[in-house]
Amino acid sequence: MLLNQIDSPADLKKLTIPQLETLAKEIRGFLIETLSKTGGHLAPNLGVVELTLALHAFFDSPRDKFIFDVGHQSYVHKILTGRKNRFDTLRKYKGLCGFVKMSESEHDVWEAGHSSTSLSAAMGMAVARDLKGENNKIVAIIGDGALTGGMALEAMNHIGHERKNMTVILNDNEMSIAPNVGALHNYLTKIRTDKHYAKAKEEVEHLLKKIPAIGGTLAKTAERVKDSLKYLLVSGVWFEELGFKYFGPVDGHNLTQLFETLKQAEKVSGPVLIHIITVKGKGYQPAEADSHTWHGGGPYKIESGQFVKVVGPPMYTEVFGKTLIELAEKDDRIVAVTPAMPGGSGLLPFAAKFPERMIDVGIAEQHAATLCAALALDGMKPVFAVYSTFMQRAYDQIVHDICRQNTNVVFAIDRAGFVGADGETHQGVYDIAFMRSIPNMVMMMPKDENELRHMMKTAIDYDEGPIAVRYPRLNGTGVKMDEPMKPIPIGTWETVRDGEGFAILAAGAPMLELAAGAAELLKTEGIQPRIVNARFLKPLDENMLMELYEGGYSLLTLEEGAVRGGFGSAVLEFFAERDLYGVKVKPIGIPDYFVEHGSPKEQRQEVGLTAERVVAELKAMLPRKRQRA
Amino acid sequence: MLLNQIDSPADLKKLTIPQLETLAKEIRGFLIETLSKTGGHLAPNLGVVELTLALHAFFDSPRDKFIFDVGHQSYVHKILTGRKNRFDTLRKYKGLCGFVKMSESEHDVWEAGHSSTSLSAAMGMAVARDLKGENNKIVAIIGDGALTGGMALEAMNHIGHERKNMTVILNDNEMSIAPNVGALHNYLTKIRTDKHYAKAKEEVEHLLKKIPAIGGTLAKTAERVKDSLKYLLVSGVWFEELGFKYFGPVDGHNLTQLFETLKQAEKVSGPVLIHIITVKGKGYQPAEADSHTWHGGGPYKIESGQFVKVVGPPMYTEVFGKTLIELAEKDDRIVAVTPAMPGGSGLLPFAAKFPERMIDVGIAEQHAATLCAALALDGMKPVFAVYSTFMQRAYDQIVHDICRQNTNVVFAIDRAGFVGADGETHQGVYDIAFMRSIPNMVMMMPKDENELRHMMKTAIDYDEGPIAVRYPRLNGTGVKMDEPMKPIPIGTWETVRDGEGFAILAAGAPMLELAAGAAELLKTEGIQPRIVNARFLKPLDENMLMELYEGGYSLLTLEEGAVRGGFGSAVLEFFAERDLYGVKVKPIGIPDYFVEHGSPKEQRQEVGLTAERVVAELKAMLPRKRQRA
Repeated sequence: MLLNQIDSPADLKKLTIPQLETLAKEIRGFLIETLSKTGGHLAPNLGVVELTLALHAFFDSPRDKFIFDVGHQSYVHKILTGRKNRFDTLRKYKGLCGFVKMSESEHDVWEAGHSSTSLSAAMGMAVARDLKGENNKIVAIIGDGALTGGMALEAMNHIGHERKNMTVILNDNEMSIAPNVGALHNYLTKIRTDKHYAKAKEEVEHLLKKIPAIGGTLAKTAERVKDSLKYLLVSGVWFEELGFKYFGPVDGHNLTQLFETLKQAEKVSGPVLIHIITVKGKGYQPAEADSHTWHGGGPYKIESGQFVKVVGPPMYTEVFGKTLIELAEKDDRIVAVTPAMPGGSGLLPFAAKFPERMIDVGIAEQHAATLCAALALDGMKPVFAVYSTFMQRAYDQIVHDICRQNTNVVFAIDRAGFVGADGETHQGVYDIAFMRSIPNMVMMMPKDENELRHMMKTAIDYDEGPIAVRYPRLNGTGVKMDEPMKPIPIGTWETVRDGEGFAILAAGAPMLELAAGAAELLKTEGIQPRIVNARFLKPLDENMLMELYEGGYSLLTLEEGAVRGGFGSAVLEFFAERDLYGVKVKPIGIPDYFVEHGSPKEQRQEVGLTAERVVAELKAMLPRKRQRA
Repeated sequence: MLLNQIDSPADLKKLTIPQLETLAKEIRGFLIETLSKTGGHLAPNLGVVELTLALHAFFDSPRDKFIFDVGHQSYVHKILTGRKNRFDTLRKYKGLCGFVKMSESEHDVWEAGHSSTSLSAAMGMAVARDLKGENNKIVAIIGDGALTGGMALEAMNHIGHERKNMTVILNDNEMSIAPNVGALHNYLTKIRTDKHYAKAKEEVEHLLKKIPAIGGTLAKTAERVKDSLKYLLVSGVWFEELGFKYFGPVDGHNLTQLFETLKQAEKVSGPVLIHIITVKGKGYQPAEADSHTWHGGGPYKIESGQFVKVVGPPMYTEVFGKTLIELAEKDDRIVAVTPAMPGGSGLLPFAAKFPERMIDVGIAEQHAATLCAALALDGMKPVFAVYSTFMQRAYDQIVHDICRQNTNVVFAIDRAGFVGADGETHQGVYDIAFMRSIPNMVMMMPKDENELRHMMKTAIDYDEGPIAVRYPRLNGTGVKMDEPMKPIPIGTWETVRDGEGFAILAAGAPMLELAAGAAELLKTEGIQPRIVNARFLKPLDENMLMELYEGGYSLLTLEEGAVRGGFGSAVLEFFAERDLYGVKVKPIGIPDYFVEHGSPKEQRQEVGLTAERVVAELKAMLPRKRQRA
């Protein structure tokens, strides 16, 4: 195997193109084989094998810097930079990260996980380089989907103006995670599908010669006509007008074409954009045929192209999608809005049923949020289906457009809490803290998938402002589903298990499970905590809190969210604001650091979200006398 | 006066163009006169007098909907929709809002204050309209500066794809608040300055006829050549490629041209972009000559064009700008980054002195933040100078790129706390809550402008991750400045006045002033609270908190920030995490609603940030026995 001789990018530089082609095949085989066991982002990485080989053979990493947008397409880069032998640990606890990770290699110079940051990063590195008088190359690799994220366009506007030297590789595979949408996508398609563009140059020059020589007033116009033909010769006019020199489109699986274009581009000063066309999933038929499904996933059988099935109750995501259809059948105000996550958000069945009421805006969380505000103002009931981590990108729009105007937007916040293998860039752990400090917001989290349904009904029926329901990236508990759905009174909790002396206020199914586990452990010790399903994170259940206070309970709050400013703090605030001092409240949540990849269970274990910890903390509240007189 | 006969847009429809021109003059006179007393956004409104007249005469508000981006250019709209007589209350407490305000008029259909939201709003309203089967017109009015904000481009990508009927008025005055920057700006300049574009059409058609008829393989190419000429005939190719029909450029002060273009545009289906050229400050010489200064401001003398001087110590903003120069002279890692606020952030002197180290990215907070992260990773010391309210737009980039990668980015957060007349869209009141829940963040607030200098030194010397200093939109206290600057140990507070039994933990100058006022009031009652300058909002001063705990103090926290999840909650968390129950902590901050415009003093009064309230709350903590045994 050639692959076994590659320990660093330097080893690539000795290889011929046919050898690199062989290596590409070997890498594909390695990826397909390894990921069948570990899971991971197969299709995106199969799409960039030749590209990554070409970049590492042509440039000089780590002196030259590669910035992978999002970073889940960096597997080939990892293989080529000495990490091949650790691929069996990919995305596992303490193993190789599924994204670019500076602590793993000097070749990793920028970390991401959210899209559209690479151009800003490249610009920052270019400015730093020039201020320091250095002259390394900077290469950003960005997908066509990520390009529509607003900050990528902000960066282009800046880069094109300052004209710093850098190379932007636009990896055009027509997909974000789902198929791309948007005018820019249409534009790229036009370039891509018009095979004449590249060939037309000579013909046009020939034609121009046929225009008779002219003088006088028409001379200037003739000049302008010729000038305008650059739009024909250079098909990437949209990028050229933004100050980039455009090259392409280039077949991203043709190493000869890639090297030729990189050589041409090297001669240009200022920012260059190389538009390469790749096939997501290239070289593995099931992934090529359905790259949406194969974007990322768990282990699979190579021969059958079937993912290893995980048996269990339906995911919260799926219950959300089905319930939304039920609700939408009876309420034609409902519109679903997704920022490029129709599949991940469980909305594909909804989209099939209500295509007119399904809005996929592409990677554009900010636009999505403000669009929802306007839809709500004009009488619709928009449901903003978004992952907790990506919702962060719409923070200002949530404050300024949705909450300040007090619009009836429903948030369906998926992937709330630990997300497992995607790790620290994708944890949905700040939403409680940042959402609850915004006025007018109502926020819920269900104890199970059945309650999720009732919460969705609650949200749709609520016409007094924004309301959110958050749920984890997990299977439901397998509970029986009630019919019909009933709205839950706003700001009411539910005691799920009676007890004395202590109350555990737990938000969401995983935390309620912890609480139940702790209660089991405590049985032998004669302690029986009350367990409360704290299903409203805002507003709190004031009656129950007062009852607990009056009853002399010590309280422990449990949330899979940042403990700084989270739900536990809300409970602390509640008593402080009412001058009710002396009640013991112990907030348990995620401590103040970024938690890396692993299974959600490992992540909970690491941060002390365990039944044992709950037991220990409850015991620490004994004896119930004040520690300070 | 014609103006006195205008009570609603209907009255405009009877007027001839000469009459409208007269009316425009009267409106300018009215604006110049009124704003000389109230202050306000003079230059932007002088620039849109004819445009607003044309829109209200041509369309049918409120059936047709006008969406003003940012909304500070809606004064003419307010005058024409029945609010002329309230203009003496403009931007005053309980008076007319300086932005679009739905509660003021049915003609106000979308509120803003932050830029670049109008296209998303227009799209939302267009989708809602079409789903409801209605057919009103939707008009978004957006400046060329706001267009570079990422979410505006996200919206264009969506609008151009869906091809909903709507009109986008691109009000091109070459300015955001400061002169615009960026490649898109360069592009618009090219269109604007090339006067031939509009006239070339006939000439080109004449020329085309001179191309001899051809057949065979060249026929297709000839077709393509003609096709490419649309780029010449239609100068707005960049917009056309995004799916918009482009009209312009149009002289935005020429009513005849405006009406003609609106009529032409009306015939087009799908989204239309009308590029109009206006002069910011039009009709008032001082504002035309320096529209940056005249963007918005206080009262002024009409004849001299001089703002009424407010005497007092230098603003925090100014001290920041001067100090940064001092620091940058000794540390060439320092780079200043501003999202289109070089003046408002006090950076103009820095820019003059260090043009290479001054980066104005335009309205692009997200890009600015991530750019800073990359600059820091590559050894620079970026200072992100940003208003608290606009920093909200970079929330995800702060979490994901700056804090998660633990980069040495310095935040200079201006306009922290109440901002006065700009009101609820501009209050800088969420930053403590949202910044402190992000791991790795350090956050400071100075007691005076002298301490701001030391904090800046602290921030520049700190090389362990992100660090922020927030300061209010106020004059300093007039304190003497120490020389030289000394870094403050991270996480240390300062007792500024000794006391017993109570401690007031106050963040920032205005809150320390409140604390001092409360102490004065309490003197006669024999209560002397300790006053602590809680200059680190994160990390807290653990030693002092433990000392206060041991000393049996009751604590009151004071912050000009949202009380939900704010500094007070941090103090509550501190004790709860250490199982230190029973200590009284009373968090005082801004309650959970959006506070409207007025003076900062009125705003503080409204929410109970007063010395009297502090006194009452302290007394409520007496007697010091626990209320629950």
